[in-house]
Amino acid sequence: MANHRVSLYPDEATIDVPTGTLISEVIRNAGTEISQPCGGQGRCGRCAVIVTEGPVRRRSTIRLSTEDLEAGYALACQSVVEGDLKISIPEQELIARRLTTDKSARKVVVPLDYDPEKLQSVRLRKIHLDPPTLDDSIDDLTRFKRGLAETGYPDVIIPLSVLRRIGDVLRDSEWQPNVLLDTLHGNPRVIEVASTPIEPVGIALDIGTTTVTAYLIDLVSGEVKNSAAEYNEQINRGEDVISRIIFAGKGNGLQELGSLVRGTFETLLTRIQRRTGINPENIYKMTVAGNTTMIHLFLGLPPESIRKTPFIPAANQPPQFLAHDLDLPIHPEAFVDCLPGVASYVGADISAGVLASGLAESESLTLFIDIGTNGEIVLGNKEWMLTCACSAGPAFEGAGVVDGMRATEGAIEEVWIHSSTYEPTYRVIGDGKPHGICGSGLISLLSELFVTGVIDRGGNVRLDLNSPRVRSGDHGPEYVLVWAEETETAQDIVITKVDVENLMRAKAAIYAGFSVLASSVGVALSNVDQVLIGGAFGKYINVENAIKIGLLPDLPWDRFQFLGNTAVLGAYMGLLSQDARVKMNEIADRMTYLELSADNTFYDAFTAALFLPHTDISLFPSVADIWEKYKDKD
Amino acid sequence: MANHRVSLYPDEATIDVPTGTLISEVIRNAGTEISQPCGGQGRCGRCAVIVTEGPVRRRSTIRLSTEDLEAGYALACQSVVEGDLKISIPEQELIARRLTTDKSARKVVVPLDYDPEKLQSVRLRKIHLDPPTLDDSIDDLTRFKRGLAETGYPDVIIPLSVLRRIGDVLRDSEWQPNVLLDTLHGNPRVIEVASTPIEPVGIALDIGTTTVTAYLIDLVSGEVKNSAAEYNEQINRGEDVISRIIFAGKGNGLQELGSLVRGTFETLLTRIQRRTGINPENIYKMTVAGNTTMIHLFLGLPPESIRKTPFIPAANQPPQFLAHDLDLPIHPEAFVDCLPGVASYVGADISAGVLASGLAESESLTLFIDIGTNGEIVLGNKEWMLTCACSAGPAFEGAGVVDGMRATEGAIEEVWIHSSTYEPTYRVIGDGKPHGICGSGLISLLSELFVTGVIDRGGNVRLDLNSPRVRSGDHGPEYVLVWAEETETAQDIVITKVDVENLMRAKAAIYAGFSVLASSVGVALSNVDQVLIGGAFGKYINVENAIKIGLLPDLPWDRFQFLGNTAVLGAYMGLLSQDARVKMNEIADRMTYLELSADNTFYDAFTAALFLPHTDISLFPSVADIWEKYKDKD
Repeated sequence: MANHRVSLYPDEATIDVPTGTLISEVIRNAGTEISQPCGGQGRCGRCAVIVTEGPVRRRSTIRLSTEDLEAGYALACQSVVEGDLKISIPEQELIARRLTTDKSARKVVVPLDYDPEKLQSVRLRKIHLDPPTLDDSIDDLTRFKRGLAETGYPDVIIPLSVLRRIGDVLRDSEWQPNVLLDTLHGNPRVIEVASTPIEPVGIALDIGTTTVTAYLIDLVSGEVKNSAAEYNEQINRGEDVISRIIFAGKGNGLQELGSLVRGTFETLLTRIQRRTGINPENIYKMTVAGNTTMIHLFLGLPPESIRKTPFIPAANQPPQFLAHDLDLPIHPEAFVDCLPGVASYVGADISAGVLASGLAESESLTLFIDIGTNGEIVLGNKEWMLTCACSAGPAFEGAGVVDGMRATEGAIEEVWIHSSTYEPTYRVIGDGKPHGICGSGLISLLSELFVTGVIDRGGNVRLDLNSPRVRSGDHGPEYVLVWAEETETAQDIVITKVDVENLMRAKAAIYAGFSVLASSVGVALSNVDQVLIGGAFGKYINVENAIKIGLLPDLPWDRFQFLGNTAVLGAYMGLLSQDARVKMNEIADRMTYLELSADNTFYDAFTAALFLPHTDISLFPSVADIWEKYKDKD
Repeated sequence: MANHRVSLYPDEATIDVPTGTLISEVIRNAGTEISQPCGGQGRCGRCAVIVTEGPVRRRSTIRLSTEDLEAGYALACQSVVEGDLKISIPEQELIARRLTTDKSARKVVVPLDYDPEKLQSVRLRKIHLDPPTLDDSIDDLTRFKRGLAETGYPDVIIPLSVLRRIGDVLRDSEWQPNVLLDTLHGNPRVIEVASTPIEPVGIALDIGTTTVTAYLIDLVSGEVKNSAAEYNEQINRGEDVISRIIFAGKGNGLQELGSLVRGTFETLLTRIQRRTGINPENIYKMTVAGNTTMIHLFLGLPPESIRKTPFIPAANQPPQFLAHDLDLPIHPEAFVDCLPGVASYVGADISAGVLASGLAESESLTLFIDIGTNGEIVLGNKEWMLTCACSAGPAFEGAGVVDGMRATEGAIEEVWIHSSTYEPTYRVIGDGKPHGICGSGLISLLSELFVTGVIDRGGNVRLDLNSPRVRSGDHGPEYVLVWAEETETAQDIVITKVDVENLMRAKAAIYAGFSVLASSVGVALSNVDQVLIGGAFGKYINVENAIKIGLLPDLPWDRFQFLGNTAVLGAYMGLLSQDARVKMNEIADRMTYLELSADNTFYDAFTAALFLPHTDISLFPSVADIWEKYKDKD
């Protein structure tokens, strides 16, 4: 049988395989993980890859749309090699995270009209100088500046490290040096001079409370050369921002948290360097998104006042600093641009997200929700924007729930409960034995418990059901999702009444957030034209389930769009485009922040939402039948 | 007997002594050195101090003019305490260097019209902010900037270290922080925020090839709070700039020379801190003068191209850097402002010197000579300035001469030779046994050898004289200045024909330098209205002797003025006054540099000057009688 060469991207691994080999096998043989929650039966669609070159035969295309197929998508578990191939593996596979099955997530187009000469924030120039003579004996710096002025940069800033090399570089290059300038803010600044060509790359970074994501970008072409994500090493010092702020206030806590996030960044850099061979010294620019606390900890700013009324950050729009000021292992003269935030609880991740989502330029009334450890919400359009933050708490990320866990291998990500036997079926990430339940699994579980009547509209577990799954446990009433013999931990996986209450408080906080926003401007939620959901977590939520429990407003499903990590997309745009960067400041300035703790209506809205899906069922017409059905059981 | 309290400045030492105590004794008892070359006989005048308050009785006032007495001068060895006193000890005493007896040196007035509010380059402000509330919840940085804008600074730069402290300082100060701004260049920059008052000081530094001098300046009042000088530790890696450039080019030479000069600076800082109690962390600004090579080594710029035709420095006007960029142990955000130079061999010390001398604003045709290891010369007035450098070599600093030494204890500093016996008398710094001969001693000795006919007009030693002092030694013909039994080293102190030739080359280079400058613009040296002599060395030259050997032009003595270390004075002015700092740049730009190695007439002028005093005796009418007298002996 003929052998074919398959090249895998972004890993750039190459492997020779015979005709008819399953692509999922090829990928595994090349040493890369690919997640197959359904066990390779073509049901889940999560092993989708993009065939960019060469012939494959697709045995099944379930879960793929016509557009997907046109774009080259194939299910790795259902497609076989028929010739030399180039295959691109979407990045989330590489970090053992699930590819969303929601197709809209693949269609996110960064609204960045990229023209390198027009948009790039760095400039590469080769300048041509006359060698000095006794009659033209100006110093090297003046000669160099004269040459730069002739190429249109009359007033440049020269850092010490460049000045120290300039004499040698001018002579080694025979007075034709390559120059890299950063032109994004203020006077152009020379970042590098060299006698050989400079190939500048940049980093767009999103520092999430839970996950840190980095994109490596070619600063000339705008190409995303690689990406990587990793858990924020600060997690062990507190799962949410409040506990990190408290940790930062003790002893060397602030320094320790700073080192931890720098350590995470270094891990990402090392991984990117291994994959691409690009030296971090060639990283000449960096933008950083993140919530306000994460930016404070990254810059070493004490965050204490963020958590105390009146909730004041040290800086919403920090100045730019240099990599060497921050002790980052990239080019020491690289600008590190922390993107602008709005308030203590609406940070740069939201300004970046709003930019990437296109909300700020949309005619349509748009609700933007970034669901992470905190829930940040923006309501508005190109005319106005109102924003608030509600502490959903870490329940949707699996924390604060007895058997909660993050969405990694072993997490139950989807649940179905039989409506008469109350016996569950579930799907586990990685397809092994379950360890616990992740955020989307909890939403799915809560929805199923409600729909089947295992819990009532107030979240109470119906102990009177005729099922061994419902019982009184150590933590009060609970539902047993998995018996001990089927789990990895050999202990029952349960959801307790307390867990349900935590989840209901989280969903109620988010619902109350956007309903207070809407009512504060006199807008009915039903008038919202589109709901854009950002955040790596937001990517995996099932809309139907989320509406059933009252986490999302009851709107037609086609008004929802999942955008993935909008923070890092905004950082990418700000890295490359001066225009986008300026717009982001405008967005941050334009957003009116509503401090919910100072809003009297929030508590009422929150309390009203502490019900499944809500105390006012008229807000959830699509769920009315379920609600009515279990009304008499309450 | 009554006791009186004597306070000594700048040490601020206080001591109680009985009536009639000699001031020199008081000073010694207070633990401070005071040099007494004549052994306390009131002959040398070098222990002169200034009595600023209280009664003394002066036993002798020899060496003091009427003006001196009016100014409060008293000879410490000749004056006794008669009441409570405040005594100011001129700084050079404290570094075991000689106080010049040339009275003009005491009269140097820095032409700096000092009005703190108008001139100071830093600004201290206390700003008054409203505490944040839920309704006014802008971040600390924005609030702080808003407050600064109200005091007239709308667009300030905030460094990371300030941003890191701002939250705590605002709260500790109850929203009334003290702010220190540097307003000298570009946008105002916040250097410090504090809840307690800030007392900013600055450093004016002159990095000489041989000596590094620092003034500690109160940045608010302009007061010189202290000063210190120390040998440049680089000396052991080469006595002149050329040998240092060569050293810098080998291995880690550049780094090593950088550390050495930083080490010298740290020594000075430590000494100043010990004397004043001022913490180097409170040094918020620094100006640096020095020749172009010294500035390069201080900044870590490779100086190699300075010594190779066409003699190109990396930068004549380096940008400002921050103390932490340069690893200096002062406040890390302090600006370090290296003053502007003109060319490879006319550096920032000359721009600063010209500023301090007032030449650039003088109506009079002025010759400014800075005699150090190199001789730099400026000719001009407020209309035009021409400059050049000639490598005098280190002979006048005692190097390159068999028994030469620097002007420290044990150096012969003045010589008289009996015109018929050829027996010398001499004066030794510190009055002990002599070790060798320093620069002024060599000028004095060369002059005496010429005047008494021990050497002829060509510098040849007259071995036919009837004197044991004249002999053929290991190095050829020589004159024995001190017999071995009278020396510290137990070896004869001699001056050889080779030494005389070195000295003659040095003086010829300087004379040729200013005569080429003058003739290049068609000016006769006799038309020069004033000769201003700068450089710590220039302070100790005897004009009469210097004219006799043809080092200085033959002009009436009252046209010469000794200004001392004009480089550090210029640095002091640039530190305090934006106006002075801008003028210094203008001066550097205005000076036309003449590269002598490219000038055909220089070699002729140099050769013509290799004679005592010169081949053209018409240029030295005051010396004509001596010249004629020994004409027949040649």
